[in-house]
Amino acid sequence: MELRCTVSPVEWRQDRVRILDQTRLPWEQSFIEMRDYLAVANAIREMRVRGAPAIGVAGAYGAALGALAIQTEDREAFLGELHKVIYTLAATRPTAVNLTWALRRVGQAVSRGRDVLQMKSLAVEEAQKIQHEEELATERLGRQGADLIPDGATVLTHCNAGALATCGCGTALGAIRTAKLQGKQVRVLATETRPLLQGARLTAWELAQEGIPVTLIADSAAGHFMSRGKVDCVIVGADRVAANGDVANKVGTYSLAVLAAENGVPFYVAAPLSTIDLTLASGDQIPIEERSPEEVTHILGSRTAPEGVSAFNPAFDVTPSRYITAIITPAGIARQPYIVSLRQAIEGRTQVGGGDNA
Amino acid sequence: MELRCTVSPVEWRQDRVRILDQTRLPWEQSFIEMRDYLAVANAIREMRVRGAPAIGVAGAYGAALGALAIQTEDREAFLGELHKVIYTLAATRPTAVNLTWALRRVGQAVSRGRDVLQMKSLAVEEAQKIQHEEELATERLGRQGADLIPDGATVLTHCNAGALATCGCGTALGAIRTAKLQGKQVRVLATETRPLLQGARLTAWELAQEGIPVTLIADSAAGHFMSRGKVDCVIVGADRVAANGDVANKVGTYSLAVLAAENGVPFYVAAPLSTIDLTLASGDQIPIEERSPEEVTHILGSRTAPEGVSAFNPAFDVTPSRYITAIITPAGIARQPYIVSLRQAIEGRTQVGGGDNA
Repeated sequence: MELRCTVSPVEWRQDRVRILDQTRLPWEQSFIEMRDYLAVANAIREMRVRGAPAIGVAGAYGAALGALAIQTEDREAFLGELHKVIYTLAATRPTAVNLTWALRRVGQAVSRGRDVLQMKSLAVEEAQKIQHEEELATERLGRQGADLIPDGATVLTHCNAGALATCGCGTALGAIRTAKLQGKQVRVLATETRPLLQGARLTAWELAQEGIPVTLIADSAAGHFMSRGKVDCVIVGADRVAANGDVANKVGTYSLAVLAAENGVPFYVAAPLSTIDLTLASGDQIPIEERSPEEVTHILGSRTAPEGVSAFNPAFDVTPSRYITAIITPAGIARQPYIVSLRQAIEGRTQVGGGDNA
Repeated sequence: MELRCTVSPVEWRQDRVRILDQTRLPWEQSFIEMRDYLAVANAIREMRVRGAPAIGVAGAYGAALGALAIQTEDREAFLGELHKVIYTLAATRPTAVNLTWALRRVGQAVSRGRDVLQMKSLAVEEAQKIQHEEELATERLGRQGADLIPDGATVLTHCNAGALATCGCGTALGAIRTAKLQGKQVRVLATETRPLLQGARLTAWELAQEGIPVTLIADSAAGHFMSRGKVDCVIVGADRVAANGDVANKVGTYSLAVLAAENGVPFYVAAPLSTIDLTLASGDQIPIEERSPEEVTHILGSRTAPEGVSAFNPAFDVTPSRYITAIITPAGIARQPYIVSLRQAIEGRTQVGGGDNA
């Protein structure tokens, strides 16, 4: 049996990009078609498309759209214009490394073109290739992760690391889906994930559609359930993994990792290789995006705090690797010391972690 | 200079109880006047009045209203009816011990009456006495707590342990207000406190009115700020403190305590003596109220989760005393071993904790 997900957050259609507007879920499924790379940049900034792998793919298609629209036959002028496109797209969201990784790949592919016509083709082809590779990687990652989920387990997850965040069936949710496909009984506790409610709106929506039992909890209740022995493991996604295994992910991930360690609950991070950034020695160097205070002072457009009261709104936090039981990658399960195991995963030298997962 | 708060969550007015409807804050200040004890029971259940000390006082006035309405001249029949009133009020919310404590006091006071007329007077007098004592206790508690707040501190608080939750100026917020009155610079990080947003709606509202700098954060961001050294101490209220110092308080308190311990941040609980329950050996025995799933699946009446998805909604959690640096009481600062220091506080034998706080 093969794992299939019908949700596709990003699609290339001939000469345009189509995204599922995730700010409208779960109330309606509406799509946005874009021919202008600036529209793609806005869609990423406004989180109409979100999730590290998905914004990598969306960014790559945005660069392809930008390339197609450049009006010159001159190779150097073309590259100069494309550089501006890539810079604009890369500046939309700083934390997930997938975006700059995918944009760099498009830039490098294009530079191999002989002329502008070919360079435009290469941009589109590279973006499609990235999407295809990410789909395969997500599938492999899901199989690796499923091995860590015991039959009958209750898995706690945070934010949305599902089909909506990736290409394919998701990283954290991909592991859960694969475990179910293998015949295991799995139950999910999903944190609602304030401020933007990706857990309530997206994770619950994905899982409910597939008949995987999911129960929502307030973010602050996760510790209570761990302390009462109601959580068998935690699996989350990642926006960037540093060389030492420190992980930037949705704000609140750090708290969950500390609580898991305190309660002896395994804490797993699921990350495709495109999320691993060996250029950063540790998580201290990962830029943390600060988003608008209004995401905290308002909910669904309604003000909850009194006028004049502001908020801090870091979108991510950094979980030191000492709290992380394992990092699930498509190349295998990486464990401490991550400085070794992550490099092995990237370089494909060996199946990292136990050979059991081969 | 004396600490004064203009907010009064519960007031006795001649022959009725007036409460400030906290479900309508911060959008409007509307009051509900009640002559029927069942209306008081509903107001407590629906959290129109909330906060352990405040529901104790509201419950006592509810019992007084119930007593006034009993139509009999027979002493034993009167006590039987009053017992039903007290039982109904006590059943509204199980976790905060203040409610049963205050109701028991009214019941005991009434039983000293010679005849029904005097018993009705005693019910009202005892409720007023409870309110007055709680006001004085909150004031003393605030002075004790202020000593723990360094000048220039950023204090993180959760939910609302302010004037709205107590009689007087609040427990956790009373300490902060007193510190400010002493001339200290204090800044507050307030968690919004899902599901019912007491931090965003109530704590931010109280502090903003008094010009105490307050910044809101998502509940799940608290760990991030602690790990970055942005929090000097955490002060929260309590709904029930067991004999060993375990504390039941708003869900999420346990997580904050674990994160504070992990990051070397002092974690203080502010509790009047009416919140301390020496009849329970440990926090395992504290009943945890489970509220409607709709509080989690909806926000401000709008559904956030997909149809058919449910939620778990424990209103409280239990923080083991090993994570608690000190418990601030009106009688002094209680520290480990709490089994000794809390009993001393209750029995008034000595000024508990360091004599510095006398």
